[in-house]
Amino acid sequence: MCENEKKYKQLYNREVKKIENRISKIFRNKIPSSLYKPSEYIMTGGGKRIRPFLVLASAKAVGSEFKNVYNAAVAVELLHNFTLVHDDIMDNADKRRNLPTLHKKYDTGTAILTGDSLTAFAYKYLLLDAGEKPHDAITFFTDGVIKVCEGQSLDADFEKRKNVTIAEYKKMISQKTAALLEMCCAIGGTIGGGSKENLKNLKSYGKNLGMAFQLQDDYLDIAGEENHFGKPIGGDLIEGKKTFLLLKALEVAKGKNKNELIKVVKNNGINKKDVLKYKLIYKDLGIFEITKKEIARYTRKALNAAKKLNNDEGKNLLICLAEDLLGRKK
Amino acid sequence: MCENEKKYKQLYNREVKKIENRISKIFRNKIPSSLYKPSEYIMTGGGKRIRPFLVLASAKAVGSEFKNVYNAAVAVELLHNFTLVHDDIMDNADKRRNLPTLHKKYDTGTAILTGDSLTAFAYKYLLLDAGEKPHDAITFFTDGVIKVCEGQSLDADFEKRKNVTIAEYKKMISQKTAALLEMCCAIGGTIGGGSKENLKNLKSYGKNLGMAFQLQDDYLDIAGEENHFGKPIGGDLIEGKKTFLLLKALEVAKGKNKNELIKVVKNNGINKKDVLKYKLIYKDLGIFEITKKEIARYTRKALNAAKKLNNDEGKNLLICLAEDLLGRKK
Repeated sequence: MCENEKKYKQLYNREVKKIENRISKIFRNKIPSSLYKPSEYIMTGGGKRIRPFLVLASAKAVGSEFKNVYNAAVAVELLHNFTLVHDDIMDNADKRRNLPTLHKKYDTGTAILTGDSLTAFAYKYLLLDAGEKPHDAITFFTDGVIKVCEGQSLDADFEKRKNVTIAEYKKMISQKTAALLEMCCAIGGTIGGGSKENLKNLKSYGKNLGMAFQLQDDYLDIAGEENHFGKPIGGDLIEGKKTFLLLKALEVAKGKNKNELIKVVKNNGINKKDVLKYKLIYKDLGIFEITKKEIARYTRKALNAAKKLNNDEGKNLLICLAEDLLGRKK
Repeated sequence: MCENEKKYKQLYNREVKKIENRISKIFRNKIPSSLYKPSEYIMTGGGKRIRPFLVLASAKAVGSEFKNVYNAAVAVELLHNFTLVHDDIMDNADKRRNLPTLHKKYDTGTAILTGDSLTAFAYKYLLLDAGEKPHDAITFFTDGVIKVCEGQSLDADFEKRKNVTIAEYKKMISQKTAALLEMCCAIGGTIGGGSKENLKNLKSYGKNLGMAFQLQDDYLDIAGEENHFGKPIGGDLIEGKKTFLLLKALEVAKGKNKNELIKVVKNNGINKKDVLKYKLIYKDLGIFEITKKEIARYTRKALNAAKKLNNDEGKNLLICLAEDLLGRKK
C-alpha cells in the first residue's frame, strides 16, 4: 500500500515540473528551426511524464538520488515521444493529446525526421548521466528500442490477421508498451548503481506495470464513463482493434454473441452507433470482470516485485505510482 | 599517392566481402519477419560499403587491427541505410541501387519502422566493439546522427527557398553527407585507441573526403558520359535541385544565361529535353572547371590530413580510397 499518498503526489508534481522545465529548454531557439520547432512542439505538448518519473523512482529505489538521473529521465521521454511521432504517422492519427499530430501540423517528412532526431537526442541525454561505463545503460536503452519496433511491427501484422491469440496479443503489448517501462526502471536502477537482484526486481516491476497499464487502456476505452485521452468511447471497436477484451470475448462467446463479435474482425471495425450493443455483449460475457482480474494480477506482480527493493522511500514511490496509475479513471 | 593500387583493391574487395558476410547474417530468419525481411532487403541490396571500409582503414591508421572494428563497421553501414530508407520516403523515390525503394516494395509504415530499428541495431553493433569505455564512440555516433538529421532538414528547406547561397549549401552537405564520413573515421580511430592528434587528422580526412564526394556527385550528375547510379543525366536539373553547380552558375552568370538559370529555380526544375542546353550553359560559364577545382581542393585537404597519420599501412589505405573514390567515373 502506498504510504502518505498526499506527500507522494506533491513529490510527483514537483519532480514532473523539474522534468518539464528541462524538456522545455532542449530545443529552444535551436537551429535549424525546421527540425527543432517540431521537436519542441511534440516534447512540450503535455503527457503525464510517467516514464521519466519511473527513472527517478527506480534510481531512488536502489539508494541513489534523483539528481543523478535527470538527464536519463529526459532521455526516456525523448524516446517515448519518438515512438509517438512515428506511430502517429503509421496510424494516420489526426490528434495526440488533443493537439494536431506532428505530421498533420507539419508534414510526414518533417515528422519522420523529427522522430529520428529525438532518438539521437535521447542517446545524447542518456550519455550525460550514464557515467564512465555506460555500457549497460546503453544496452538496456537500445534493446528497449528494438523491442518497441518489434512490438509495433507485430501490432501492424495483427491488423491484417483475422486469428490473433491472446498469447500473441500479450507478447505484442509486452514489447510495444511494457518493454519501454521496463527499460525506464532498468536505466534508473543501473545508473543508480543497483545490484543484480534489485535490477531484476525493478525490471519485473516495470514490465508488469506496463502490461497492467496497456490492459487498463484497452479496458477504459470501452468501459470508461466518458471520453478518455480525447478518444470516443469504444474507439478500439470502431477501428476494429484486436484488444484483450475483443480477443477474450471471441474466445468465450458462443452462438449469436460470437457471430456479432466475428463481424468486428471481418469488417475491420464497427459503426459508432453499435458501440453500446457490443458493450452489452462484453458485459453479458463477463469480459469486464475478466479484464479487471487480469489487470489486478499484473498489478499485484508489479507490487510484489517493488516490495523486494531495498530503499523504503524509492520503493514507496513505485508502489504509489502503480496504485495511482492503475486506479486511474481516465 | 596511393602505393600499390592493385594490392589495395584486392584488400578492399576482400574486406568488403567479409563485411557483406556479416551484414547478410544480421536479420536472417529473425522474427518478426514483417520487420526483419525489409531490414534484410535494404541491407543486402548492394552499395559500395565505403563507410564500413573507412572504419577499418581508420582503425588501422592509428595502429589497431581490422578485427577490432568489424562490428563498428557494420554499425555505420546500418546507420547509413537507415538514412537512405527514411530519405527515400521523404524524397518519394522509386528506386535505390536499381531496386524498388523499401517504402515502394513494402509500405511507408514498414519503411519508417525498418529505419528506426536499423538505428537501434547500429547502436547494438557499435557497442560490441566499443569496449569498456564506449563513451566517445557513442558520442561521435550520436552527434553524427544529429548532424545528418539537421543536414536533411536544411536540404528540405532549400527545396522551398529560391535564394540559397553557396556557403549555406556547403554547410548543408557538410552535415548531410560529410558528417557521416567524418564520424566513420572518428569511430575507427577512437575504438582503435588513436591519439587526439590522430583523431583530429582522421576527422579532417573524413570530412573533406565527404565534401569532395558530394561535390563530385553533383558534378557527375550532369557531366557524366552515361547514367550513373541509374539516374538520368541532368537528373538534378530536372528535379530543380540546388546543387553546387547550379548555385555557382547563378552566381557567375549574366544576361541571357542568368535568365535561363533563374528559370530552373522558378519552375522547380526543367524539362528533360533541355538538359543539353543547360550543360552548354555550364560549359560556357566554366562551371565544370570551377567544380573540378573545388573537388580537387577538398581532396587535397583530405590527403594532407591522411599524410599526417602514423601508421603507414592504414595511411595508404585512406589515400588509395580517396584517390579511387574521387577518380570515379560513375
